[in-house]
Amino acid sequence: MTQSVQPILCNGEWIAGSGTSTFQAANPSTEQPMPQTFPVSPWEDVDQVIAAAAAAAKEMRGWPGTRFAEFLETYADEIEARADLLVETAHQETGLPVSPRLRDGELPRTTNQIRQAAATARNESWRIPTIDTGSGIRSMYGAIGPVVVFGPNNFPYAYNGMAGGDFAAAVAAGNPVIAKGHPSHPETTRIFAEAAVAAIEKTGMPKALVQLIYRTSHEDGLKLVSDPRIGSVGYTGARQTGLRLKAAADAAGKPIYLELSSINPVFVLPGALKERLETIADEFQTSCLMGAGQFCTNPGLVVIPSGDLGEAFIEAVASRFESAASSTMLSEGVRKNFLAALETLKQSGATLVTGGTSGGGTGVCVKNTLLRADAAAFLKNPHALQTEAFGNGSLFVTAETTEQMTEIAELLEGNLTGSIYSDTRGTDDSDCEQIERVVRTKVGRLLNDKMPTGVAVVSSMNHGGPFPATGHPGFTAVGVPGSVTRFGMLQSYDSVRPGRLPQVLQDKNPGDVWRRIDGAWSQADL
Amino acid sequence: MTQSVQPILCNGEWIAGSGTSTFQAANPSTEQPMPQTFPVSPWEDVDQVIAAAAAAAKEMRGWPGTRFAEFLETYADEIEARADLLVETAHQETGLPVSPRLRDGELPRTTNQIRQAAATARNESWRIPTIDTGSGIRSMYGAIGPVVVFGPNNFPYAYNGMAGGDFAAAVAAGNPVIAKGHPSHPETTRIFAEAAVAAIEKTGMPKALVQLIYRTSHEDGLKLVSDPRIGSVGYTGARQTGLRLKAAADAAGKPIYLELSSINPVFVLPGALKERLETIADEFQTSCLMGAGQFCTNPGLVVIPSGDLGEAFIEAVASRFESAASSTMLSEGVRKNFLAALETLKQSGATLVTGGTSGGGTGVCVKNTLLRADAAAFLKNPHALQTEAFGNGSLFVTAETTEQMTEIAELLEGNLTGSIYSDTRGTDDSDCEQIERVVRTKVGRLLNDKMPTGVAVVSSMNHGGPFPATGHPGFTAVGVPGSVTRFGMLQSYDSVRPGRLPQVLQDKNPGDVWRRIDGAWSQADL
Repeated sequence: MTQSVQPILCNGEWIAGSGTSTFQAANPSTEQPMPQTFPVSPWEDVDQVIAAAAAAAKEMRGWPGTRFAEFLETYADEIEARADLLVETAHQETGLPVSPRLRDGELPRTTNQIRQAAATARNESWRIPTIDTGSGIRSMYGAIGPVVVFGPNNFPYAYNGMAGGDFAAAVAAGNPVIAKGHPSHPETTRIFAEAAVAAIEKTGMPKALVQLIYRTSHEDGLKLVSDPRIGSVGYTGARQTGLRLKAAADAAGKPIYLELSSINPVFVLPGALKERLETIADEFQTSCLMGAGQFCTNPGLVVIPSGDLGEAFIEAVASRFESAASSTMLSEGVRKNFLAALETLKQSGATLVTGGTSGGGTGVCVKNTLLRADAAAFLKNPHALQTEAFGNGSLFVTAETTEQMTEIAELLEGNLTGSIYSDTRGTDDSDCEQIERVVRTKVGRLLNDKMPTGVAVVSSMNHGGPFPATGHPGFTAVGVPGSVTRFGMLQSYDSVRPGRLPQVLQDKNPGDVWRRIDGAWSQADL
Repeated sequence: MTQSVQPILCNGEWIAGSGTSTFQAANPSTEQPMPQTFPVSPWEDVDQVIAAAAAAAKEMRGWPGTRFAEFLETYADEIEARADLLVETAHQETGLPVSPRLRDGELPRTTNQIRQAAATARNESWRIPTIDTGSGIRSMYGAIGPVVVFGPNNFPYAYNGMAGGDFAAAVAAGNPVIAKGHPSHPETTRIFAEAAVAAIEKTGMPKALVQLIYRTSHEDGLKLVSDPRIGSVGYTGARQTGLRLKAAADAAGKPIYLELSSINPVFVLPGALKERLETIADEFQTSCLMGAGQFCTNPGLVVIPSGDLGEAFIEAVASRFESAASSTMLSEGVRKNFLAALETLKQSGATLVTGGTSGGGTGVCVKNTLLRADAAAFLKNPHALQTEAFGNGSLFVTAETTEQMTEIAELLEGNLTGSIYSDTRGTDDSDCEQIERVVRTKVGRLLNDKMPTGVAVVSSMNHGGPFPATGHPGFTAVGVPGSVTRFGMLQSYDSVRPGRLPQVLQDKNPGDVWRRIDGAWSQADL
């Protein structure tokens, strides 16, 4: 191992890894390697990190939320103090535009998420404190133990293992985090870790509250998520890797929260096209091409009426796709997978309307791509035609009747979102109702007259959905307090002496905590 | 197949199974077979049941909670109308005493659970309706789809797949239930199903709202829980079977809620023994021997101080065990497993204080059994000495110091409960605090000065705990609304037109539903 290999963050120290294997990220705009070299961590290093996390978890047992809130708020400040460096670095590592995406969109969203998680830690709402006065029993959620967070490639900030939604939620619930940075933006992740270390020092938190590794062997990844010292896992990324981690964590009884693939079906009803075809084409173009389509909520499947209306819509979208430049993709790997998925779709009954080959922009990119198939083709091959093509492309399926649209809906796998566009005069209403009854059970978030991209960070957001979009349809990765409660364990106190109860379960409300007392929510003392 | 084989309940009809394999339960008091013969259902039959459940789920999509409340309340009435028959039948099938256990304890508890679930369906609290007024996004939990409920052997009513807590919770969440009755009390389960059919008819619910099969091959059980048409699974029973079902359900992305084994550690501190040794011995005897110890919350591991105090306590318990008659066990299988587990404990470093062989009462029974080991033995072989011995027995471990007790606590697997007895004068307080910090993370319900048996049906109950006690530490099988929310999927509505929103998410509160509006809980209209 050469001296220039970046260290990992273990128990508050930046230490040299003990392995010899390394990797470099690449700048997708220039297609040149980034200057820094990062280590692949052998099990010995991972083990050390887990041990430190377990010790930190033990030290923090029973700490009130304010401690974690202070850390998170300080961390958000430290991130903002490094905004220029983070923006420049992430731009180089991901090819995502500096503005508005990185500086004005994702970074403020990320600090906002961290501050929302802090507020939830402070007001203790994620704990769902519950008191039954007659029974002597009280309950709340408490920290679950060290959480491993795997960040994806497509959000260098908002889902970063060291700064994103799962990270913030896990810390807000009082847990140490072991961040597994994504290997396509390791330097961005390292800068976050520096900011986190500064926040740990300023707020007097255990050094192992947050730790960072960049990469492990597949085998060690499975060992990590199933280690007895681990409490839970958050993973956002590719389906295949996620399912392997899920199998390992499941077998060890470790809750793992996954966000895997999703094609986010959009149903556009005839009345809506008659009423506002061009507007919908504009909305679709923006949603599908933004960030080179590299969003978990990218609209990858659009079901439209067949015939003149549908053809006109396809034409309107195709011409927009042809005249828009392609955005740079995150990496050569993403381009390769995107092209392979397009190939799968074509081999499964879809035909190319436009795009489908590399090019159309700067660096790593693929022309904006539109595929089409008819309902018969989809119904014949529903599984393959739901292959996620992660990039600036989409498959349009033409359906002759509402019944065909409904049949398509019935065959959908679990997705994060599902959208239905209908007209404002009511002519689509009964079709909409019929389709919605089916789509509702297949998606986490149902939209009307709106494309799925853009995940508002609010408590009613469900960034989740039925398998295989995630591993469990009851959880959201975005939106407090729900996302925080995921990283808690339910703890009942039965006849526990009053002085030994956690503060939020004592008779006196420690602040303005919402508690469910004999079935009624209240901020009052008992 | 002979005419005398009982039919299964499929889509509202009692139909003859299509298989040839059958089984009979036995009366453990007389050790004679019960008169009825029940079918092992081949996949063809199971498939038909799943199809009917899926159709019912589709039919009920979006129905308000009142519909399910009415069914559950009517069902509770129908159960009570059959109380004599249920009590007599369950007594024969399980050997459990008619009074107070079956008639005065478990049956009222069961109808109480059903009525609590009904109340939750009616007040919609399990849905956690959430509204962010600024965002146009609202969310709630909705039905997850058909639920398979596997009931255990030890509660013929309160956990019955056709009448117990999981059953009631799954229906309250708006789902059809496929009950897999336990083969040791099939006739009891059949009577419940008759009551349920009567309630379905009286309340106009879909015929396939509840269906019943008694037994399948292991392979078909795995197919059932991973079938794409299934929404979720509830299982209470033996660890090994549960883990096999979990692996199948996990791989298919189906949420499965398990209640597996638990040894429910009890720590008795020196001051408590000095203060009230005889009282604690009484409490322990009652808790450990009740129902022949066949409770998931049976105190199977008791950590006590070594030396004179501990010896006196062991003696006090041993003499009580010896003078108390053994209760009849549920089945020959239970006796066999209990004796085998005692053997494992003995081979792993425990020695017999009293009991350990069959006899001591009527029918299938084992003498009340007490084993002991010292801390060194436990620390040497912590896994084997946590073998669950499901029956009227317990292992006492003597520890020389608080540190040793804490070390034992650190090695505990996940359990449903953990109890700590300390004195009332404060001399045990610091020991108690030290041990509690560790025990708290290992158990779902922490008790002070109280034995773990007796699960109050209140909203603050956590009848759950870390793996391997259950499959996920965030869920409880007992206590509404939490137990109901398990069988829901989180559903966000983003910019969905007001008239299309479910009632509980509309501006006007449909009743007195508690909703979280902009972070504050309220029963008001928007």
